[in-house]
Amino acid sequence: MSAPTHVRQTRPVSFTSVSIDDPFWSPRLEINRTRTLYHVYQMCQQTGRIDAFLLDWKPGKEPKPHYFWDSDVAKWVEAASYSLATHPDPDLKEKLDEVVAKIAGAQQPDGYLNIYFTVVEPEKRWTNLGMWHELYCAGHLFEAAVAHYQATGERTLLDCAIRYADYIDSVFGPQPGKRDGCPGHQEIELALVKLYRVTGERRYLHLSRFFLDQRGQKPSFFVREMERLSPEDAVLNRHFFQRGATYDTQYVQDHLPVWEQSDIVGHAVRATYMICGMIDAGLELGDKELIDAAYRLWKSACQRRMYVTGGIGSQRANEGFTSDYDLPNETAYAETCAAIGLVFWNHRMLHVQPDSRFADVMERALYNGVISGVSLDGERFFYENPLESRGDHHRQDWFGCSCCPPNIARLLASLGGYIYSEALDAIFVHLYIGGSARCRLGATDVTLRQESRYPWDGRIRLTLEPDRQASFDLALRIPGWCRSFKVTVNGQDASGMGSIHKGYLYLRRHWRRGDVVELELDMPVERVYAHPAVRQTAGCVALQRGPVVYCLEGVDNPFPLHQVALPPESRLEATFEPDLLGGVVTLQGEALLDEESGGDLYRTTPPARRPVRIKAVPYATWDNREPGPMRVWIREAR
Amino acid sequence: MSAPTHVRQTRPVSFTSVSIDDPFWSPRLEINRTRTLYHVYQMCQQTGRIDAFLLDWKPGKEPKPHYFWDSDVAKWVEAASYSLATHPDPDLKEKLDEVVAKIAGAQQPDGYLNIYFTVVEPEKRWTNLGMWHELYCAGHLFEAAVAHYQATGERTLLDCAIRYADYIDSVFGPQPGKRDGCPGHQEIELALVKLYRVTGERRYLHLSRFFLDQRGQKPSFFVREMERLSPEDAVLNRHFFQRGATYDTQYVQDHLPVWEQSDIVGHAVRATYMICGMIDAGLELGDKELIDAAYRLWKSACQRRMYVTGGIGSQRANEGFTSDYDLPNETAYAETCAAIGLVFWNHRMLHVQPDSRFADVMERALYNGVISGVSLDGERFFYENPLESRGDHHRQDWFGCSCCPPNIARLLASLGGYIYSEALDAIFVHLYIGGSARCRLGATDVTLRQESRYPWDGRIRLTLEPDRQASFDLALRIPGWCRSFKVTVNGQDASGMGSIHKGYLYLRRHWRRGDVVELELDMPVERVYAHPAVRQTAGCVALQRGPVVYCLEGVDNPFPLHQVALPPESRLEATFEPDLLGGVVTLQGEALLDEESGGDLYRTTPPARRPVRIKAVPYATWDNREPGPMRVWIREAR
Repeated sequence: MSAPTHVRQTRPVSFTSVSIDDPFWSPRLEINRTRTLYHVYQMCQQTGRIDAFLLDWKPGKEPKPHYFWDSDVAKWVEAASYSLATHPDPDLKEKLDEVVAKIAGAQQPDGYLNIYFTVVEPEKRWTNLGMWHELYCAGHLFEAAVAHYQATGERTLLDCAIRYADYIDSVFGPQPGKRDGCPGHQEIELALVKLYRVTGERRYLHLSRFFLDQRGQKPSFFVREMERLSPEDAVLNRHFFQRGATYDTQYVQDHLPVWEQSDIVGHAVRATYMICGMIDAGLELGDKELIDAAYRLWKSACQRRMYVTGGIGSQRANEGFTSDYDLPNETAYAETCAAIGLVFWNHRMLHVQPDSRFADVMERALYNGVISGVSLDGERFFYENPLESRGDHHRQDWFGCSCCPPNIARLLASLGGYIYSEALDAIFVHLYIGGSARCRLGATDVTLRQESRYPWDGRIRLTLEPDRQASFDLALRIPGWCRSFKVTVNGQDASGMGSIHKGYLYLRRHWRRGDVVELELDMPVERVYAHPAVRQTAGCVALQRGPVVYCLEGVDNPFPLHQVALPPESRLEATFEPDLLGGVVTLQGEALLDEESGGDLYRTTPPARRPVRIKAVPYATWDNREPGPMRVWIREAR
Repeated sequence: MSAPTHVRQTRPVSFTSVSIDDPFWSPRLEINRTRTLYHVYQMCQQTGRIDAFLLDWKPGKEPKPHYFWDSDVAKWVEAASYSLATHPDPDLKEKLDEVVAKIAGAQQPDGYLNIYFTVVEPEKRWTNLGMWHELYCAGHLFEAAVAHYQATGERTLLDCAIRYADYIDSVFGPQPGKRDGCPGHQEIELALVKLYRVTGERRYLHLSRFFLDQRGQKPSFFVREMERLSPEDAVLNRHFFQRGATYDTQYVQDHLPVWEQSDIVGHAVRATYMICGMIDAGLELGDKELIDAAYRLWKSACQRRMYVTGGIGSQRANEGFTSDYDLPNETAYAETCAAIGLVFWNHRMLHVQPDSRFADVMERALYNGVISGVSLDGERFFYENPLESRGDHHRQDWFGCSCCPPNIARLLASLGGYIYSEALDAIFVHLYIGGSARCRLGATDVTLRQESRYPWDGRIRLTLEPDRQASFDLALRIPGWCRSFKVTVNGQDASGMGSIHKGYLYLRRHWRRGDVVELELDMPVERVYAHPAVRQTAGCVALQRGPVVYCLEGVDNPFPLHQVALPPESRLEATFEPDLLGGVVTLQGEALLDEESGGDLYRTTPPARRPVRIKAVPYATWDNREPGPMRVWIREAR
């Protein structure tokens, strides 16, 4: 992609045009609508986050608003809006109306809208962009406003967002009389492009670009800002930026101008949101430098710094990246929000260029490291998603810094928007998720129905219903994990008819109503090996079938998991178990177990091994039964 | 040892009665005398630690004394004293006299002697025993005083120590009018027994026992003390003791009365020093409960929580212990001082009962995790001794908290004292180190000469010179790593003559001047496996030959060390290389290297392997050449 080809202008088919009816996803989305959304609302309410918009906090009153509270509520508004767009729910609508009214009521006469810097420390507005999340909260408000408008047609929140964006645009920018700076936590960059797309106001696009451009300047904005702060106000800044006598602002991706960046560094969520903004602004502005940087960063993240689960950010200290191929399992941070950010990012990459590698990463994250973030009952969440646990890591119902629960809610509520793209003469199918989509190809409307038991089964049936006979490409993603497939059109072998380009099978013909395409992706159990440079998985394998990465859990495997070694020749059987974990395919087979014999801590004979049955379950479903140890990477006996 | 047998009353042969003449140790001890001792002196002087005893610090003056400074100087005094006892050195003696005079001059009229609480915060004397190292510094002063007296015959420092101990005894104790409390960092317990042994003053022994008994009471002394402190003064206490609304004082081994303890917990150096005190006081007072607890703790530490290098304390956060079989390699803390403490402790265990398991641990630590702590040039030190490094861990010439450098200096300067023990009718040889020792067995004086190329060669020649013909046991330790040995007396096979008991070969006969015992310990290259419960070394082997544990270093093995897998059948050759690292035996052989092919982060084919020569060097000598990665545990291809 050194030279991205914009042969086709593709755009996502909006979630509002997609309905999902899928044995895997429908139950999860139902839980998201009926449990997670209500749970997040209740937690926001209980913790004071919603009523904080009433601005009645006074010194001494508990709880004191935190400067990231606005964003949790905004993400809930976004999630609830998406949900209402496809699933009307009067109770939820009432709650949404109430929250939107409270948010709108908190807007200041000048357009400013932030709880903390209105009631707690109003004198500190815009004084610590590096650490105090003010512009980040604004970005989430804009995303919420756009979603709310698109879902309900109501302008209340959108108008708030416009007034706030206009105000921010009056403060920041390159023009004389405006100030410099950019957010320590990226988010507003992508949000401003969303706001531009819905309003057509190009100032928002240019402000997004301004914030992107401010990053990585010499001298660093963040260092200059930090030096203006009092020692008390600069505690976090110094913690993250100061290295003895020198500074290092990699934590906020401020080491280089964004268009010069090649290695993904620092806080993982910040990085993914920034790159989403780079792609959005880059595509709108036709800026190839931004797009090329996004692709270099993609190679860094997805080819050298990503877990097999699609988790990114391997270290707790910076909630972020370390170095190439450094992927510890037990101490993996792999924040749920970062995997979500990776989905956002890869989905955008697909609209730079349809390349199945992007959809592969999106799918890897989605089926593994994203949905691991929420329990099957929808009310407990992982912040961190390690790939190995000694039994002490469990989901919680909320967090002090609770970005992940509403983030997963908004992604799932808009999942339909990630499945298809449309172009003038093509429909792209990125994900195999059952349901139907209304696509618009030039003058032709096409309804596409998808049926499958994916990810448990590789057979997918697509029925096309163009409103008139039309010639276009149906571009089906051939996943990277699939080494062999068959395709038929109306029952006839169609292998010869299609051509594969960058991982998509393009089937071109005059499509008629009722044409049926059947795709059969071979989906054996695979042993996955990491690049040999990953020292933490040397000698180990992960088990994967289709897009689903597996793990061993103590509840199924009552022996120390690190003592299991899988012989190369051992066969693993895949079995669908309808009553387990909501219905999953499990993998079972024979392995060897190092036996404990004698008490010597060190000995000169290797441990004896005995055969043992092992059973693996999808990684995303772990910690939904008895608490216990878990392990993704299994030693291989070779 | 549920019932220790005190059949023989053994005592160490003092380092003053032992001279070392050994191809392995003599060069190291020479470096210790001529480089390390001078280097530590200079660093103490440069950093202000020595002149701080002049008590002329005033607010605003830099550097401000730290409350652990006294102990660094005291350990240097102890080390210099040991050295002078066996190797006169006028220059060193002059420095020692100067330092001793400064220390003595700092003693207060009431006997108190501590820099920080005399000049910086005198009003805070004895207010924070938990974290401020006051009694710890006193203990090191007592050890220094005893060493100085024994080495020089001068009473200056001993009299200071006696006055200070008398003062402490007037403050602390169970008697009416005295206060409670015990040190957060144990040390004074063992030091008071030393002081008792040299002065005969039983109050010191009872005060030691008092401090031991104060620990682990309910309610905890440390918690009560912490609650009296201001928030500023209690920062460290709260950090280490407070867990939300509850307290956990395991960090200072305060969770249970010492005689009830079974699991070794908390800060590793504190634990080892405490247990040394328990053994010393237990033996002097005939308290079997203390001895039994020391043995239970030994099993916990040495059979479940010790690295193959003799390092202990696997975690940085508490500089200490975690849980059974939790022995991470790259993040191993394994503080040099803790390995030294393990030597102190196991040496004491040998005088509870001669059992080669104790000498095995002492030897394992000494030849590996202790001397790894100092560079071959004697002037750079490891504080932490990980078993794996990516190339960024290197020795430093000093530390802000610089306990390790003088600690290793005092151990090496008194190494002669760890080799032999004597009893009424027996000489025990614990370590195979060349030189001679004068032992007193009842009415018989025996000079024993030892010659060997140990640890590179298992043949040891011992020549006995009793001052008259006498019958006694020569008890030779058969190391745990040795699976076969031969022994001759005056050239005649003596296998039938001896009996083995708890790992010692007891040779009893009428010994005459010039009798020669030759012991040949079989010393093949061994592959060592950890207990299967150690998850971090599953599937890996360590290489060991005799007591020496090996590692791979990048400088000899220019490929990623984690990509090496050693086939079970691969033979490793041992070769003495006189010009390498001061002369070491290296191990070389053929292994397999996972090849890097293709850039995919995840793939479904295992890495191809190609043969590669590997070369291992003694762990203790790593990081003495080009900086680079290191690894002790090597994957085994099975």
